[in-house]
Amino acid sequence: MMTKPAPVSAGEFDQIFAKVCNWGRWGPDDEKGTLNYITPECVRAAAGLVRSGRSVSMAVPINKVAGPDNPRPAVHYMVQGYDVGSGHSQYCGDFLATEFHGDCHTHIDALCHIAYKGKLYNGKPVTEVTSRGPLIMDITAYAHGIVGRGVLLDVPRLRAVKWLEPGEAVTPEELEAAERAQGVRLREGDIFVFRTGHHRRRLELGPWNNTYQGEGKAGIHSTVMPWLHERRVAAFFPDGDGETVPGNVEGVAHPVHALQIAAMGMACSDSLQFEELVQVCEQEQRWEFMVAAAPLRLPRGTGSLFNPIAIF
Amino acid sequence: MMTKPAPVSAGEFDQIFAKVCNWGRWGPDDEKGTLNYITPECVRAAAGLVRSGRSVSMAVPINKVAGPDNPRPAVHYMVQGYDVGSGHSQYCGDFLATEFHGDCHTHIDALCHIAYKGKLYNGKPVTEVTSRGPLIMDITAYAHGIVGRGVLLDVPRLRAVKWLEPGEAVTPEELEAAERAQGVRLREGDIFVFRTGHHRRRLELGPWNNTYQGEGKAGIHSTVMPWLHERRVAAFFPDGDGETVPGNVEGVAHPVHALQIAAMGMACSDSLQFEELVQVCEQEQRWEFMVAAAPLRLPRGTGSLFNPIAIF
Amino acid sequence: MMTKPAPVSAGEFDQIFAKVCNWGRWGPDDEKGTLNYITPECVRAAAGLVRSGRSVSMAVPINKVAGPDNPRPAVHYMVQGYDVGSGHSQYCGDFLATEFHGDCHTHIDALCHIAYKGKLYNGKPVTEVTSRGPLIMDITAYAHGIVGRGVLLDVPRLRAVKWLEPGEAVTPEELEAAERAQGVRLREGDIFVFRTGHHRRRLELGPWNNTYQGEGKAGIHSTVMPWLHERRVAAFFPDGDGETVPGNVEGVAHPVHALQIAAMGMACSDSLQFEELVQVCEQEQRWEFMVAAAPLRLPRGTGSLFNPIAIF
Amino acid sequence: MMTKPAPVSAGEFDQIFAKVCNWGRWGPDDEKGTLNYITPECVRAAAGLVRSGRSVSMAVPINKVAGPDNPRPAVHYMVQGYDVGSGHSQYCGDFLATEFHGDCHTHIDALCHIAYKGKLYNGKPVTEVTSRGPLIMDITAYAHGIVGRGVLLDVPRLRAVKWLEPGEAVTPEELEAAERAQGVRLREGDIFVFRTGHHRRRLELGPWNNTYQGEGKAGIHSTVMPWLHERRVAAFFPDGDGETVPGNVEGVAHPVHALQIAAMGMACSDSLQFEELVQVCEQEQRWEFMVAAAPLRLPRGTGSLFNPIAIF
Repeated sequence: MMTKPAPVSAGEFDQIFAKVCNWGRWGPDDEKGTLNYITPECVRAAAGLVRSGRSVSMAVPINKVAGPDNPRPAVHYMVQGYDVGSGHSQYCGDFLATEFHGDCHTHIDALCHIAYKGKLYNGKPVTEVTSRGPLIMDITAYAHGIVGRGVLLDVPRLRAVKWLEPGEAVTPEELEAAERAQGVRLREGDIFVFRTGHHRRRLELGPWNNTYQGEGKAGIHSTVMPWLHERRVAAFFPDGDGETVPGNVEGVAHPVHALQIAAMGMACSDSLQFEELVQVCEQEQRWEFMVAAAPLRLPRGTGSLFNPIAIF
Repeated sequence: MMTKPAPVSAGEFDQIFAKVCNWGRWGPDDEKGTLNYITPECVRAAAGLVRSGRSVSMAVPINKVAGPDNPRPAVHYMVQGYDVGSGHSQYCGDFLATEFHGDCHTHIDALCHIAYKGKLYNGKPVTEVTSRGPLIMDITAYAHGIVGRGVLLDVPRLRAVKWLEPGEAVTPEELEAAERAQGVRLREGDIFVFRTGHHRRRLELGPWNNTYQGEGKAGIHSTVMPWLHERRVAAFFPDGDGETVPGNVEGVAHPVHALQIAAMGMACSDSLQFEELVQVCEQEQRWEFMVAAAPLRLPRGTGSLFNPIAIF
Repeated sequence: MMTKPAPVSAGEFDQIFAKVCNWGRWGPDDEKGTLNYITPECVRAAAGLVRSGRSVSMAVPINKVAGPDNPRPAVHYMVQGYDVGSGHSQYCGDFLATEFHGDCHTHIDALCHIAYKGKLYNGKPVTEVTSRGPLIMDITAYAHGIVGRGVLLDVPRLRAVKWLEPGEAVTPEELEAAERAQGVRLREGDIFVFRTGHHRRRLELGPWNNTYQGEGKAGIHSTVMPWLHERRVAAFFPDGDGETVPGNVEGVAHPVHALQIAAMGMACSDSLQFEELVQVCEQEQRWEFMVAAAPLRLPRGTGSLFNPIAIF
Repeated sequence: MMTKPAPVSAGEFDQIFAKVCNWGRWGPDDEKGTLNYITPECVRAAAGLVRSGRSVSMAVPINKVAGPDNPRPAVHYMVQGYDVGSGHSQYCGDFLATEFHGDCHTHIDALCHIAYKGKLYNGKPVTEVTSRGPLIMDITAYAHGIVGRGVLLDVPRLRAVKWLEPGEAVTPEELEAAERAQGVRLREGDIFVFRTGHHRRRLELGPWNNTYQGEGKAGIHSTVMPWLHERRVAAFFPDGDGETVPGNVEGVAHPVHALQIAAMGMACSDSLQFEELVQVCEQEQRWEFMVAAAPLRLPRGTGSLFNPIAIF
């Protein structure tokens, strides 16, 4: 199970792309993509999972310190503090500035975020994204939040390791083994919470350069996408960003993103952490929970910082 | 009911402050304040309200245009777009910068945000807030989100007007009348969603300067705070920011904030909008719903932009 | 002299463009444009003008307040202040963020800043400017500063008015009249300091919307460009930005910029102020002086804030 | 000459402080400090040095890449680019955000930037610097620029090394040796351009952590300050920031800054580079030149990025 899966050629990749492609499935101007799988029944069922009332953040604290995985750290300053003699009723305030898609900032991607061969999801041309921002498929498509059943598949738990090492790619077979081990099954309209232990590794070993030019990261193999497609998964919440780096697809820089976002229109987030989540899952011995997550309501955003929570 | 309530003197204000003061109630180092009222049972009950599965944002879209209520507009630029010839698999990204506590940005305050007579909630000194940010009671105290039952009290609906005019203050009596009219009752651990129609007015008449130096805004009267204290309300989600401006408390710039945050330790947000929410409430003929809201997980944040959602 | 000059048709504009075009004049990869006119002799002569030793800023203070001519105000916060008990040797610091090309920020344009019909100066294609910044002709072309003789032509002085009104266009004839009135003559390698009284009007009447959608501004007429071309002027330092708005060229949004930057390769700055300068000129009864000006050394900058000074 | 000078005790430091203290020298509300030494004659003489007309930047290019000496890199994005079909006359623009006082950004300090034992220059209390910026002695005190004679003392040249190593402190004796070797003499009203080769080292060996927690840097010894005081030097333009790190003053974090800024009121800049300058100096065999430098005109700035130029 832990052997490195075979590389995927450019031609095979295009076949996978065609197989999982949801272009036109929900109309030519659809901007919700796989969130369309979440029915009222899904939401009701998710709410039905709430028992202990605990809620758990799946976000990494915003990182203001430059490092190998944080080349453009968040900028955070006080706007006004409490000055001597500034009166009875006082307030303080602050200012935050960030690039969203950094490899260490918990965020969600808009569907405009990724193009493959000049096309966005639903076959829209990249010229719909101007230098002043996207004209279509920005993050406001998710403004009313993503609410549903989250299912955590914890691969390090299955493997009995603390984390997966950079370059390791998880296959459908291994995900099914994790389902069996945890007694859960990803089904239509679910939010797939995917744990490689990326953040645990970071906490214990310190940050590393997880880009193509660096040491890489663990992720999912391209063959997982047809499996997610068949399962009709609604959203993808990984630690890391889902990509296996170094990749195993010839000539495609971000194969997971290209398939999930450009082909499938999947609601994808990046760089979550599940260290608090796994503790609660183990305590309650269940790996399904209600998820509520909402990006900032940012017109023309190509994504957004967010703080998704799991409710037990 | 619509007459302007009597002004409150500085002495009376201090009496109200003492009456609603929760300092020490949950221990000397508590940072959760009134969120302590939300029990597991509250969360379960809130989840039990989920029926139609609809979710609705209560956030105003992030405003990048300067105006009378937006002197420091959000700064939003593309980091990278889709350039000619930039390869098969491409991505675009952006950058967002904002001051949080602007009068038109939907946000939540940290408990360190307000001081009264040099003291923060729980009697902590303002020197705990340094020029590099607060050392205590920052917004990460709410990192795991605010989940519970939201109850909307829609004052314009009660009055059969589109919105309250600037300077109008809502009293406990009027809130009770709204409860009766809507068939709901705010109780321990609830999230009080308070509508004056501020955003509706803005949509129809355009933005106005709603500060003390300008035309003001509608809010709650200081006498509401003992009522909220008795009801053990957990959180306050208003359009506007709760303050009545011009105020009716002598010598205190932000009496509502001072009482709610500094005295009570209440989880307070600012500048929400309920235009989509009221439509769903009317359609479903109910004014209670599950709320899920989480600030960005920002160490040393005095608050955070957020996108709270109501789930029906 | 004050009558509005005749409009210029699109065809006439293209004729002017061809007439003043410096493409290739200093080689196909030149990035200095008209600064090539400044010879060592020019700099020596400029230094020879220094007598009283006074220096005067020609910059407007950086504007942090939103207004009709400042929709995206500069963002300026303290990074660190002096906190109680922070030790013997302390420091404070700050943070500044701005969009450069705002209509009220004194700045200089890089030659990549303007394109006409898809071409930059020297005929380079606009694709040389990517979403991550210009690959050629960025502001570092001026890194070693602009030093030379400045000649102020003060049109309000000539007309005996406080300022020109929005929409008024200055012609070559009027500039020559100003030269005669002041006893100076713009010659090869000079820095043309052009005063319409824009900032004086702003100080007295308050800011106004000086864009096409607003009330406009005074500037130079398109026929001035052949005159500047013949005079071999090296740089243009106006209050306002040189454009007459509403314009008098059919179908071209920024005719002055298009001619000066895209055709001529002229070093152009925007939104200076000369209120302190004119006082010194009147006191010393001379309208020529040494100029020293340097943009920030910003790789890939399309321009830069700067603070040009006149030395007497 | 290259032996490490003896450490300075806290008591000795206070004696030096008292000796060089200029408080009150130019009036109780003076904000120009040692720039008062620059007389009209100084400026005229500086202009008289202009012969070849060459100008040379002394700024390091703005650094947007995080590194050991750049923990908070400059933030630089395009505001608008050239989009397909965006019309005949187009423009592009950008956005820059920086913290000023970073160890790798060429900048100038305002006199409010440093306090010693709770006092700013002229004995003003640190409470004059509020959380919204300084109320006195901000960078606008230098708005009209710093113009005068620059004298480069090139210590690596004297020592026949490429650069000084971190921790090496230059003494008055060594500066006088450099004067003799170069045939110049620092005199009243001069701008002291001080080269340790800091930037040359960075270019050849790459960036390093030059803070107290890191590997340190070369600078001037505290005993240089009385020498500068006697020479009546007007301004200090070093590569590095002048400090020797690790320092040799007991208990004072930034002794050079404390003496120069808080005691003397000296116009101090940080982190310049002289790699182009030394080439011109060697070619022209002279180490004196005209300097023109102007900070951005930033109200309440504690400093400013700038691009000082030397004119030959």
